[in-house]
Amino acid sequence: MLYVIGHKKPDTDSIAAAVAYSYLLNKLGVEAKACRIDDVNPETEFVFNKFGVGIPEKVFNSPEKRFVLVDHNEFYQSIDDLKEEQVVQIIDHHKLNVSFLEPKFVRTEPLGSTCSIVFKMFKENNVEVPKEIAFLLLSAILSDTVIFTSPTTTEEDKRIASELAEMLDFGDLKAFGIEMKKAKADLSSKTARDIITMDFKEYEKNGKKYAVGQVELVDLSEINSRKEEILSEMRKLKEEKDFDLICLMVTDIINQFTDLWFVGEDWIVVKAFGKEIKDNSVHLPNVLSRKKQVVPPIEKALS
Amino acid sequence: MLYVIGHKKPDTDSIAAAVAYSYLLNKLGVEAKACRIDDVNPETEFVFNKFGVGIPEKVFNSPEKRFVLVDHNEFYQSIDDLKEEQVVQIIDHHKLNVSFLEPKFVRTEPLGSTCSIVFKMFKENNVEVPKEIAFLLLSAILSDTVIFTSPTTTEEDKRIASELAEMLDFGDLKAFGIEMKKAKADLSSKTARDIITMDFKEYEKNGKKYAVGQVELVDLSEINSRKEEILSEMRKLKEEKDFDLICLMVTDIINQFTDLWFVGEDWIVVKAFGKEIKDNSVHLPNVLSRKKQVVPPIEKALS
Repeated sequence: MLYVIGHKKPDTDSIAAAVAYSYLLNKLGVEAKACRIDDVNPETEFVFNKFGVGIPEKVFNSPEKRFVLVDHNEFYQSIDDLKEEQVVQIIDHHKLNVSFLEPKFVRTEPLGSTCSIVFKMFKENNVEVPKEIAFLLLSAILSDTVIFTSPTTTEEDKRIASELAEMLDFGDLKAFGIEMKKAKADLSSKTARDIITMDFKEYEKNGKKYAVGQVELVDLSEINSRKEEILSEMRKLKEEKDFDLICLMVTDIINQFTDLWFVGEDWIVVKAFGKEIKDNSVHLPNVLSRKKQVVPPIEKALS
Repeated sequence: MLYVIGHKKPDTDSIAAAVAYSYLLNKLGVEAKACRIDDVNPETEFVFNKFGVGIPEKVFNSPEKRFVLVDHNEFYQSIDDLKEEQVVQIIDHHKLNVSFLEPKFVRTEPLGSTCSIVFKMFKENNVEVPKEIAFLLLSAILSDTVIFTSPTTTEEDKRIASELAEMLDFGDLKAFGIEMKKAKADLSSKTARDIITMDFKEYEKNGKKYAVGQVELVDLSEINSRKEEILSEMRKLKEEKDFDLICLMVTDIINQFTDLWFVGEDWIVVKAFGKEIKDNSVHLPNVLSRKKQVVPPIEKALS
């Protein structure tokens, strides 16, 4: 039995890719089960509820379990205590950072969403995509490309989304995308810690440990009014987990910019973005993607 | 234009995969050209001559060139001075060891030959395999799996080879495989340096630089009579290139064993294989594959 899992603090792409890919594996005669390793966010809940699909169960690690990693490949973003021999496959759209002892099945493509790759694999293997899977794939593509506005978006993602929308007789993609993002963006009931860690990824480069969280919003007024509270919680988290730098991308998906809030070693942020720092923050116009626009400059600054 | 290249000291799988994959890319509307970065071995010459296919030209690096790496992914096995931004795709069946700043198209599978993966990609993209490409793919699978006896061989490789053999109306696979291996195994005209470096791969692990060459033979008497000469040449090469360890797999493909000759830090060989050393050599029954049976224990010993 293979357990198909997305990353820690999973987003819709991670959970949808796990469900869709395990379905494909089953159709190809491989015993596999979609799981999650962490709680899902409200956007993912909204998407799964919309089509009445059950959210995968949480899986815990044990040495005999074998895993397929989707939407991530770096081990510190995966289930705790993962060993190389437990990893059977990787399907991902992030930068690869692995050093294996044995050859493995790995497929990464520079597309906007892991679900775009999974959809291609359905086609390549001539497996029909059922409606509920098509809906999950489409939602994940809309989510991960921020409704096709993120610079990670490719023509291939758009073509795949159109094909899925047609299969589903889907109406207004943009309206659905905004509804989905709003489900995630309701901050009123959330603690500062929730906001920081809702979509939070950890990295290591040359001995520096850093993390980048992201909140995608349609209006920044509420979060801006809580900035001091959130920065102070970020400082606490930094001490607790011994990070050198914590960033939070506060992204306005309507006006297409990110305010990058941060605590920790500010030289890294200065070197990475070359921008004026004001109130522990740099303003980054047209920046929407952690993977493509925030992590690479930080990695470069650290290398 | 993409240049599709195999590794240094290319084998038949590297050159055949480059030719076949560039053909597939062209069919998919991508400008691509198969090249080599080093001279080919007599086996590859034999295979290409057999079907009258031209051997790809040698390519030299320049910063504006973009590459597809086939049959390797580690940069020190690739064209000199390769930079990450020059690498557009990787198709390989070796262990992955990469740390990228950007997402890329990467596909590795634990199959016996890169050409098995390339064949799957033809099918997935519904592109017909022309006869000369089918012949190259089949030859590469036979070569890299040592006529299906290497432990890297999978059921999938065998199935693909049968399918290709059927397309080609091919007779005795084993007889052809041995003929091919014999073409490579004619040592009489070769210098000790030629024998060592004909199929030679370099590695680095935790600051140790080592290399593993391989000669596949149907009879070891000739090479055994030249052992002192070859070991002394290995010592010279070790000093010249500053290796910590050089191994030469002297593989008997008929009786299915390898004598691993080596010069350099013998503790690595002792730790990796736990065998008695005699005359700078350890005897390894049923060992045929560098990738699966020699490199992993050495990497483990060094980690």
